[in-house]
Amino acid sequence: MTDGRNRVVIEHIEPAVDGGRFPAKRVVGENVEVGADVFADGHDIVSAAAVYRGPLETKPRRIALEHRGNDRWHGDFQVLEVGTYRFTVEGWVDHFATWQHDLKKRFDAGQNPAVYLIEGAAMMEEAVARAGEADAKTLQEASAFLRSRKSAEARVLFGLNSDLHTVMARCVDEEFVTRFEREYEIFVERKRALFSSWYERFPRSVTSTPGSHGTLKECVGLLPEIASMGFHVWYLPPIHPIGRTSRKGRNNSPEAAPDDVGSPWAIGAKEGGHKAVHPDLGTMADFEALVKAAKEKGIEIALDLALQCSPDHPYVSEHPQWFKWRSDGSIQYAENPPKKYQDVVPIDFETESWRELWDELLSIVLFWAEKGVRIFRVDNPHTKPFDFWEWLIRESRAKYPDLIFLAEAFTRPKVMYRLAKLGFSQSYTYFTWRNTKHEIERYIRELVSTEAADFFRPNFWPNTPDILPEILQYGGRQAFITRAVLAATLSSNYGIYGPLFELCISEAVAGTEEYLHSEKYELRSFDPKRKGNIRQIISRLNTIRNDNPALHHTRNLELLPVDNEFLLAYAKTDQESGNTIVVVVNLDLHHTQSGWIQLPEDSIELPENQSFMVHDLLSDDRFIWSGRSNYVQLSPHSLPAHLFRLRRFMKREHDFDYYM
Amino acid sequence: MTDGRNRVVIEHIEPAVDGGRFPAKRVVGENVEVGADVFADGHDIVSAAAVYRGPLETKPRRIALEHRGNDRWHGDFQVLEVGTYRFTVEGWVDHFATWQHDLKKRFDAGQNPAVYLIEGAAMMEEAVARAGEADAKTLQEASAFLRSRKSAEARVLFGLNSDLHTVMARCVDEEFVTRFEREYEIFVERKRALFSSWYERFPRSVTSTPGSHGTLKECVGLLPEIASMGFHVWYLPPIHPIGRTSRKGRNNSPEAAPDDVGSPWAIGAKEGGHKAVHPDLGTMADFEALVKAAKEKGIEIALDLALQCSPDHPYVSEHPQWFKWRSDGSIQYAENPPKKYQDVVPIDFETESWRELWDELLSIVLFWAEKGVRIFRVDNPHTKPFDFWEWLIRESRAKYPDLIFLAEAFTRPKVMYRLAKLGFSQSYTYFTWRNTKHEIERYIRELVSTEAADFFRPNFWPNTPDILPEILQYGGRQAFITRAVLAATLSSNYGIYGPLFELCISEAVAGTEEYLHSEKYELRSFDPKRKGNIRQIISRLNTIRNDNPALHHTRNLELLPVDNEFLLAYAKTDQESGNTIVVVVNLDLHHTQSGWIQLPEDSIELPENQSFMVHDLLSDDRFIWSGRSNYVQLSPHSLPAHLFRLRRFMKREHDFDYYM
Repeated sequence: MTDGRNRVVIEHIEPAVDGGRFPAKRVVGENVEVGADVFADGHDIVSAAAVYRGPLETKPRRIALEHRGNDRWHGDFQVLEVGTYRFTVEGWVDHFATWQHDLKKRFDAGQNPAVYLIEGAAMMEEAVARAGEADAKTLQEASAFLRSRKSAEARVLFGLNSDLHTVMARCVDEEFVTRFEREYEIFVERKRALFSSWYERFPRSVTSTPGSHGTLKECVGLLPEIASMGFHVWYLPPIHPIGRTSRKGRNNSPEAAPDDVGSPWAIGAKEGGHKAVHPDLGTMADFEALVKAAKEKGIEIALDLALQCSPDHPYVSEHPQWFKWRSDGSIQYAENPPKKYQDVVPIDFETESWRELWDELLSIVLFWAEKGVRIFRVDNPHTKPFDFWEWLIRESRAKYPDLIFLAEAFTRPKVMYRLAKLGFSQSYTYFTWRNTKHEIERYIRELVSTEAADFFRPNFWPNTPDILPEILQYGGRQAFITRAVLAATLSSNYGIYGPLFELCISEAVAGTEEYLHSEKYELRSFDPKRKGNIRQIISRLNTIRNDNPALHHTRNLELLPVDNEFLLAYAKTDQESGNTIVVVVNLDLHHTQSGWIQLPEDSIELPENQSFMVHDLLSDDRFIWSGRSNYVQLSPHSLPAHLFRLRRFMKREHDFDYYM
Repeated sequence: MTDGRNRVVIEHIEPAVDGGRFPAKRVVGENVEVGADVFADGHDIVSAAAVYRGPLETKPRRIALEHRGNDRWHGDFQVLEVGTYRFTVEGWVDHFATWQHDLKKRFDAGQNPAVYLIEGAAMMEEAVARAGEADAKTLQEASAFLRSRKSAEARVLFGLNSDLHTVMARCVDEEFVTRFEREYEIFVERKRALFSSWYERFPRSVTSTPGSHGTLKECVGLLPEIASMGFHVWYLPPIHPIGRTSRKGRNNSPEAAPDDVGSPWAIGAKEGGHKAVHPDLGTMADFEALVKAAKEKGIEIALDLALQCSPDHPYVSEHPQWFKWRSDGSIQYAENPPKKYQDVVPIDFETESWRELWDELLSIVLFWAEKGVRIFRVDNPHTKPFDFWEWLIRESRAKYPDLIFLAEAFTRPKVMYRLAKLGFSQSYTYFTWRNTKHEIERYIRELVSTEAADFFRPNFWPNTPDILPEILQYGGRQAFITRAVLAATLSSNYGIYGPLFELCISEAVAGTEEYLHSEKYELRSFDPKRKGNIRQIISRLNTIRNDNPALHHTRNLELLPVDNEFLLAYAKTDQESGNTIVVVVNLDLHHTQSGWIQLPEDSIELPENQSFMVHDLLSDDRFIWSGRSNYVQLSPHSLPAHLFRLRRFMKREHDFDYYM
C-alpha cells in the first residue's frame, strides 16, 4: 500500500498514444503540450507539475502546470534533442496556498487572524529542513515576522505575499507528492521528419541520350534542377539489379521483350541483391558520389526499402528457408488470387529462421546508412509484420538516430496508423483520392484534431508511379496546380513523382490509375520544356514553404468557414515567429468561384478598426482586407489558389508595417 | 523478444476504464459487449476471440468475435456471478480460412487446384496433433479425401465446407496466437446496484404522536406504506447519538434551544459514536428488528455512512491524533472560510495514524454489515481521500460481496467520476438541477453514450434534505409529478426524500434551496393525507418500473426526436424480453404542448403497413399509432407525461396480439 496520506489523483495525461504503449512524436524545436486531470478530495488547493527528461539527461526537469478549469491542467516544454524524452505528472495538496487563500477570506470577513498567522509560521518553520540555504533564511525571517508583534494587518499582508508561495513551492515535501504511476514517451526526430518536400524520379530515365539507360553519374547533373525547384529529398525507386525470371514487359505485359528493363521492384539478380547497385546505373562509388553531390546542394537522397525479391535474388538460393515453397517444389510468387505476380517472390516472415532473416534485413538498412543514406521510403510496409518493423526501426535508429522512414502504407486506416505508432516517421495518405471540400475537410480534421496528430505525420502525394488519380487524368493543367498547392500547404510533408507531375503528363491505361507507358516497365525520356509545364509554380510553392514557418507544421492547420462549397480555406500560424499563411483554393476547375472567408478569432490577431494588407505569395498580388470576414474570388483562367501571408499585428508599431 | 512470427496486433479493447486502471461495471445477468481492433499485416484472413473467466472460475472460456468492418471485432458474454470477471482478446492469422478463401477464387477462375488441395490436406494433417480424438479422426478422413482420386471439383467443394473450418478453428496452434498484453476487469454486482427505487425518510419523524421523537419500533409500522409505494430501499439518515457541543438549532440557527434535537450528521456523543443507536430512536435490537421486518416486506434498510464527528464523539478523546488541532489548543471544526460549522469536526486523513484510522472506519462498515445492512449511502465521499475509498470498498466487499455504496458526490464532474471508478456502485448526479430539454438531453448523452456508461451508475433524486430545487419551490404539484416521472424513467436508479416529496411540500428558506423547518434540525410531523399528495402516482410509477424490464437499465436509453422544445421523448428496450417503454414528458408546467415523436428504426420493430396500439401505463389510456412518426399532446390539466408500453412485434402471430 502506498502512503494513505497522498490525496491527489492524476488521470488522462496527454500526449499518450494508446495509453502509453507507443511514444507521441515531435521534432526538434517543437513544444510538447502536457495536459492532465489533477485533483484531490475536499477543497484544499492543489498544485501540479510535469517532470521530464531528455535522451541525454539523468536529472529530471520540472515545469509548473496551470489549472485551466474543470480540474484540467496544462503546461508545455520544448524538445531540443533527437531521441526519447520521458515525462510524467505530479500533483500535491498545496497546504501553503490553501493557508494563504483561507487567511485572506478570514481576514476580509473580519475574523481574528492570530491563530492562523501562527499556523502559517509553523508551516514555514517545518519547511526549513527541506529548503536550500537562501530559501531557509527567507522562511526563518518570514516566520519570525508572522510571530512578531507587528500589527495583524501587516502580518496578514506579509503572509499573503506570492513570493513566499514561490519559496514554499520549492520546498514541497516530496513524501506527499503523488507521481503518476507511469512515464510516457515522446520520440523526437530531426526537423526533416515534419517538414520535407519530396521529389521522386527514376534514375534510369535520367539521361541526356533519349532511349539509353540513365546513370547515377547523370543524376548528379540533374541536382541543380531539383535544387532550383526547392525540394529537400530526392527519392530514388530501387537501384538494385533486376531479376530476369518472369520479368514484366512494357505496360505490365506478362512477357518481356529481350530489351525490356523490368520493374525495379523485382529486386535481385546474379549481379546481387539489396546491397548492390544495378550495373546499368553505375557503381557503388557512383552512388556515394551522388549522395555527396546532393548533400552539397542541400538535397538528401532517399532510397526505396522494398523487402521482396525476384526469383533470381541471391537470397533465394542462399536462404531458401526464407521463402514459401509449394507442394510441387516451386517457389511461391506474389499473388492476390486469382492474380499472379510471378516476377516477385515475397519473403516468408513466418519462417522458423525469422531471427536470422530479421538480422539480414536490418543489415540492408545499416549498409545504406553507412553509405550516407538517412531517409528510406518503405515499400508496402503493411505486408510485413508489425513487430518486425518496430524492431527494425528501433535497432537501426540505435545506430543512426537521424534515420527517417516514410511508410508507403496505402492500406486500411488502422493498419496505416499502427505503422505510424510503431515508429515510421511519415506515411503516405488518402489525400491522393480526396478531392471535394467535404472529403478534404473531413480528412484534415481527422489528421489534426484526433489522437492521430500525436503519432501520424502525413506526407501528401498528388501522384506516384502507381497512381495517376482521376482528377489528374481529366482535370488538365489546372488540376495539377490545384493538387500541388493543396499537397504543399495542407501538409508540411509532401512529394511529387516527377518529371511527369510538373510536366502535367496525364495519359493512363484506360479505366485504371496506371500511367500509360509506365516508367515501372520501360525507359522513358521527357521534354523538360513541355508546353504548359508547371515547374515555375512548383518552384514558387517550395520557396514559399521554405520561407514561411507557418507551413513547416501540419497540426497547426485551422479550417476556415467559407460560404461556397467549391472554395476551401485554411490558415496556419507559427506561434514562435508569428508568421501566418491563409490559403484559399478553388476546387472547381472550370468556373469562377467567390465567397467570404472568415478568419479565426483565437489564433490570428488583427488590427482593430482599420484595414490591413495581405500579400498573395503565389500571384504576388496585394489586397486590402478589413475585419475577420473578407471577400475572395478565383477564376479558372488565373491561378486556382491564393496563398496569403498575414504579418503579426504589432499594437505599438506604425501602420505602414502592415503594408510591407 | 516474443516470437517474431506472431503477426496479429490487438488495440483499443473495450470495455476498458482508463486503459484498464479501473474495472468496468455490470450487474448479474447483464452482457459484456467486447470490442477490439484486431488485424495482421498482409491479406491473410484473421480470426479473433475473447477469453474470459468469472470470479469462481480457473479455466477461461472463449467466445468467437465477429468482424464488423474497419478491422473492428465484437462479441459478448453474459455475467452471472457477483465478483470480478477478467477478460482479454486473442487474434491469429487463420491460415485455413485463407486457404479456403483462395481455393475458391482460384477454382472459380479456372486454375488447376491440384497443388492447393494437397496443401490443404497437409494443413489438416499438421493440425491432427493438436486435435481432440473426434476432431483428429475428422481431419484424417478429410485430408485423405483431398488427396484422393475423386474429381477436382468434388475435392474443392469438400475443402470449402465450413464445418471443416470449425474443426480447424478448435485446433489452432496456440504458439501463433497473439494474446493482448493485459487482462481487463469487469466488476459484477447484484442487480440492485443497477435497478433500485430509494425512499429517504428521517426515522425520528416517524411517530404516531406528533411532536414526539420517532422510534425504530414505529418505523416498523411504516414499512407497509413504503412497500405499497413500491420502493426497494429505505435509506435512513444517521441513526447515531448526536453531539451537544455547538449543536445547531431549528433552521440551522447557531444557538440550539434546550429541546432542539440537533443534526443527525453531528455524529457522536457520550452515548456512543458510529456504532451506536441514538437512545431516543431505540436499541440495537430495535434496529435489527427493523432490518428483519423490512426484509420480509422486500425492503432493504440503507444506512448513512457519514465519516465525521461531533466534538463530543468518543473518537475525539480516544484518538485525538485523528483530528486537527489549532495552535491555540482548540479542535479544528469544519469550515469553508469564512463560514464555520462548529457542530462537526472533520477527520484528518493526513494523520500519521492513518492506517489505524482506516482500520477503524472499515470496522464501522463491517459492524453494520454484521447487523444485516448491505447498502450504504455515503455522505460527502469527495471530502475524504480517493485511495481510502478504493481500499475501504474493496476490503468490505471481500467480506460482504453484495455491499452496495451510493456516493453522495455532489461535486465537480471529474471527482464524481473518480469515485464511481474506484468502486462506488451508484452516485447522486446533476439531474437535480437539469430542467430544460437541452439540459436533460445533453446530460443523458453524457451518461449513456460516453465511457462513463461503463463505470458510472446514476441515481436520480428530484429532492434531498439538503436540496429543494427551484422547480419544486415554484412549479407546484405538476412539477413534483414531472420530476418523479423523469427520475424514475430516465435512470434505473432513483430516489425521493419523503414524505415531503410525495406530499409536495415546497416551502424553502427564502433565496436558498434549503427546506424551511428542515428535518435536519427539528422534529416534524406530516399529514399523510395532505391534499394534492402524489402518493398514488409514485406507487404507480414504481409498479410500472417493477413490471417493465426496459426500465431496469439506464444505458439502453435512446433519445427520440420531437418537433417541440418542451416535449422530451425517449425509449428504452430490454432486448431479452422485448419490452419497450416510450416516455414523453411535457416540460412546460403551464401550457398544453403537442408534437410528432419519431420512433427509432434500429431498436424498435414495428408492424409494417398496419397500425398498432400503444398503452399509456400512467393514465391507462390506449392510442392507435401507425408508422414511426406519431402525434402526442400533453396538457397541464392532466398528467404531464405518457409512459407508453410497446409490445414486441411478432411477425408470425395474429394481429390481436398487438391489442393486448
